[in-house]
Amino acid sequence: MTFMDRLRALWARGAYIAVSLDPVLEKLPDTLSEFSTDDALFAFNKAIIDETADLVGAYKPNSAFYEAEGEAGIRALKRTISYIADSYPDVPVILDAKRGDIGNTSEAYAKSAFDELGADAITIHPYLGREAAEPYLSRSDYGVFVLARTSNPGAKEFQDLMVDGEPLYMRVARNVSADWNTNGNCGLVVGATYVEEISNVRRVAPELPLLIPGAGAQGGDARAAFTRAKNREGGVLIVLGRSVIYASKNEDFPQAARAEVEKVQKELLE
Amino acid sequence: MTFMDRLRALWARGAYIAVSLDPVLEKLPDTLSEFSTDDALFAFNKAIIDETADLVGAYKPNSAFYEAEGEAGIRALKRTISYIADSYPDVPVILDAKRGDIGNTSEAYAKSAFDELGADAITIHPYLGREAAEPYLSRSDYGVFVLARTSNPGAKEFQDLMVDGEPLYMRVARNVSADWNTNGNCGLVVGATYVEEISNVRRVAPELPLLIPGAGAQGGDARAAFTRAKNREGGVLIVLGRSVIYASKNEDFPQAARAEVEKVQKELLE
Repeated sequence: MTFMDRLRALWARGAYIAVSLDPVLEKLPDTLSEFSTDDALFAFNKAIIDETADLVGAYKPNSAFYEAEGEAGIRALKRTISYIADSYPDVPVILDAKRGDIGNTSEAYAKSAFDELGADAITIHPYLGREAAEPYLSRSDYGVFVLARTSNPGAKEFQDLMVDGEPLYMRVARNVSADWNTNGNCGLVVGATYVEEISNVRRVAPELPLLIPGAGAQGGDARAAFTRAKNREGGVLIVLGRSVIYASKNEDFPQAARAEVEKVQKELLE
Repeated sequence: MTFMDRLRALWARGAYIAVSLDPVLEKLPDTLSEFSTDDALFAFNKAIIDETADLVGAYKPNSAFYEAEGEAGIRALKRTISYIADSYPDVPVILDAKRGDIGNTSEAYAKSAFDELGADAITIHPYLGREAAEPYLSRSDYGVFVLARTSNPGAKEFQDLMVDGEPLYMRVARNVSADWNTNGNCGLVVGATYVEEISNVRRVAPELPLLIPGAGAQGGDARAAFTRAKNREGGVLIVLGRSVIYASKNEDFPQAARAEVEKVQKELLE
């Protein structure tokens, strides 16, 4: 089953939340402090996964937090992805890597993300154009989420520049929808912190899944974002990160994570 | 000594070439075929480094080729950077990672590149704006090369879009030069395949070092690019990759690599 088919099956079950698995060693509960780096990161992720896998539409580890711990971090990332694939094979993993390089290098990144780490989808930058993204796009069983409008305060510096009468991020969304999606495996990233922009992107890319970070700790309104992004097949993943994985500093962190996912899920669907 | 001071010292010695250390296992000489992945990648790099370190202005490993080999690849990358730092401390290492994420994630990437791997500079995407790049920019001893005009055929899709009467890549170059470079540690990436674009970037960013890939295997003219990019303090790194590291398939590959660097260096300076 392709990544997109798996997403559609989960949307049909009402699963619209993607949990960011972005552990930072210093923020982990004290109960994990005796573990090696590798084991601590993996054990933390596993505990959250086991409590939330029946609720979520995807897991979205961000590569940066693993790379920051070197080899041990990469090992923990690979173990985490393998664990999800083995234990909860219906839940896809989106590697939030925000890669973007020329063709033969994109080939190596696709190999790393899909073959070496075992992720089901990746996030990428649009700046080098469709041609450079071909090594991801041609892997039609895998998903490719292209950054359109990001959730950070400085996003406007380039993304809102006017191009032929519309902001650059809309041109990106339009091109990805019209030209990049020949294999039906593209999505777009749009921040929850800018709900007008979500409506704009949905208008020019009616069919594409939108991956929406920035709700929760970054201040975006999950329900407002969801309402604007939803299409007839679902089409939305609302990303929750720090508000879920650090919902409790204590031993009950997995249960607190689950409670937070359930709370937001309820808000979305009510 | 900061990254930029080290570059200036090398330019004063006529060292304008950055060698991409982007080994792909299948392309390595047969003499390395009995080695483990980790050892093969490192041994290949070390042989080229030992033959070229007195000539080059920088080494530029691209993270993708190491990530494609998982943990073993990351180990080889770290060993390569450590070896350069220990054996040839005047030659800086630019990690070609093309990262680009929001602030707290950029923090993790900066930790990975500068602290964990030990690189002296990094390449990043402009798309999320200056605010998101602050964790790199604030590390004033390290260099930050921002993608302006890339060397690939598809670069024009977004980079050439007209914004207020000039192409997007010129706006990027202008902003990095005027607003991002408060710590004097920024440079720009401009492909050798588009020499007019190099002149345009140099006009709006007269002081910034230009990192210029795309000569050699990608077809760009190194001398034409160099002439357009050079400024009063030097200000250029011409990147050579496959044409150097795969100059010979045989045991003499390090000497062949050196000969290729010397040949292009001579073309640049004659």
